[in-house]
Amino acid sequence: METLKTRRTIRKYSARDISQELLDELLECACRASTVGNMQAYSVVVTRDPARKQQLAPAHFNQPMVTQAPVVLTFCVDLRRFSRWCELRQATPGYGNMEWFVTGAIDCSLAAQTFCVAAEEAGLGICYLGTTTYNPQQIIDTLHLPRLVFPLITITVGWPAEQPSQPDRLPLAAIVHEEDYHDYTPADIDRYYAYKESLPENQGYVKENAKQTLAQVFTDVRYTASDARSMSVALVEAMRRQGFCD
Amino acid sequence: METLKTRRTIRKYSARDISQELLDELLECACRASTVGNMQAYSVVVTRDPARKQQLAPAHFNQPMVTQAPVVLTFCVDLRRFSRWCELRQATPGYGNMEWFVTGAIDCSLAAQTFCVAAEEAGLGICYLGTTTYNPQQIIDTLHLPRLVFPLITITVGWPAEQPSQPDRLPLAAIVHEEDYHDYTPADIDRYYAYKESLPENQGYVKENAKQTLAQVFTDVRYTASDARSMSVALVEAMRRQGFCD
Repeated sequence: METLKTRRTIRKYSARDISQELLDELLECACRASTVGNMQAYSVVVTRDPARKQQLAPAHFNQPMVTQAPVVLTFCVDLRRFSRWCELRQATPGYGNMEWFVTGAIDCSLAAQTFCVAAEEAGLGICYLGTTTYNPQQIIDTLHLPRLVFPLITITVGWPAEQPSQPDRLPLAAIVHEEDYHDYTPADIDRYYAYKESLPENQGYVKENAKQTLAQVFTDVRYTASDARSMSVALVEAMRRQGFCD
Repeated sequence: METLKTRRTIRKYSARDISQELLDELLECACRASTVGNMQAYSVVVTRDPARKQQLAPAHFNQPMVTQAPVVLTFCVDLRRFSRWCELRQATPGYGNMEWFVTGAIDCSLAAQTFCVAAEEAGLGICYLGTTTYNPQQIIDTLHLPRLVFPLITITVGWPAEQPSQPDRLPLAAIVHEEDYHDYTPADIDRYYAYKESLPENQGYVKENAKQTLAQVFTDVRYTASDARSMSVALVEAMRRQGFCD
């Protein structure tokens, strides 16, 4: 539990490689995560080849971790393997829809996170790239993902070459609701976000971006409504092309 | 790593309660999971009240774990809290769309799985209920979830009162793709599913259901195409009602 409590994302890695034995052991742990109906509705594509990392990098806005990490993992929702099994066993699968996309996304995320916990326990550092769902089509093309396979999560993995400080989190009371969802009053919001807003680093972002509040840095710079709208259109289009909107 | 490798889902719990201290400690671990932009786009509703468990049970097809477990946790995608913060800070949020639903679903799943890993390390047993996305509206109504909050994962937690054997998993080669997605040939499928199909328990299901293959037990009995279609319609409708299809 100590590893879980003290963890932090690692974005810089040493040149040391990850052995196949260790990687396999971590992936075996990942496959022990809970999965709906024991169907394991996910696949993992392992990228070690530098040329392939170069190809993946633009989809991740050229974040340096992609080319610097010894191993890049793309965790995909996968209803293809299960459907192939069905088709070859006189059974008619019906998993190309939203229900199974979401179910597969949960399966896939649980496996990815279990991999990360195991990796960090082994002393490795990991970084989740939120960019995977921003540019799914580029990743689909690069990794040659067939119908009913969808890239959801990318993780870069390597031996840490940095020891950043642990980022803040909201107080537990902000996240946890007893029995009923208790909606947030203005006083709640003030209390829960006070620490985050007080951090010199965050106050620096407000200044640098010439904004009045930290929230504006999110809505106007980092995660804008117009970006989200165009990414949603591309995401739904990629889901449709991969067969998840039947 | 040993705990991860030897874990199994626990569906029967002793009468012993879970202390608030331990639960909080596990939830603190959960909040250390990676999260997009450090936005923590999730909330957790804790159900301990027996009357509330009774209310939740039908949404989970009255699986006995819901009323038997001392604690039931509903992990929700939550863009409401973050949006409230924005609105109270002269910022205009734009998180009511598919991109943020999926991003929040990943955030939510990583936190849930981290909770489970920590819980199992502490000796507790957990069970994921795949039913949460089957009947989201019932859960939304029971827990009073506002707009931009969506129930994704339900976990029952308690002290184990059973020690079931570990279920099978597909061989690692079935899940992992080196560099490129390698599509499955009929020979691959035969090889990867041979063990699962050979298990006496699974052969029993084929017989009981008067089917020819195990795959037919899935497609014709457990997870049918027509169920998935109607659940998809209800899921998208609930997403729309909660504001994720703007």
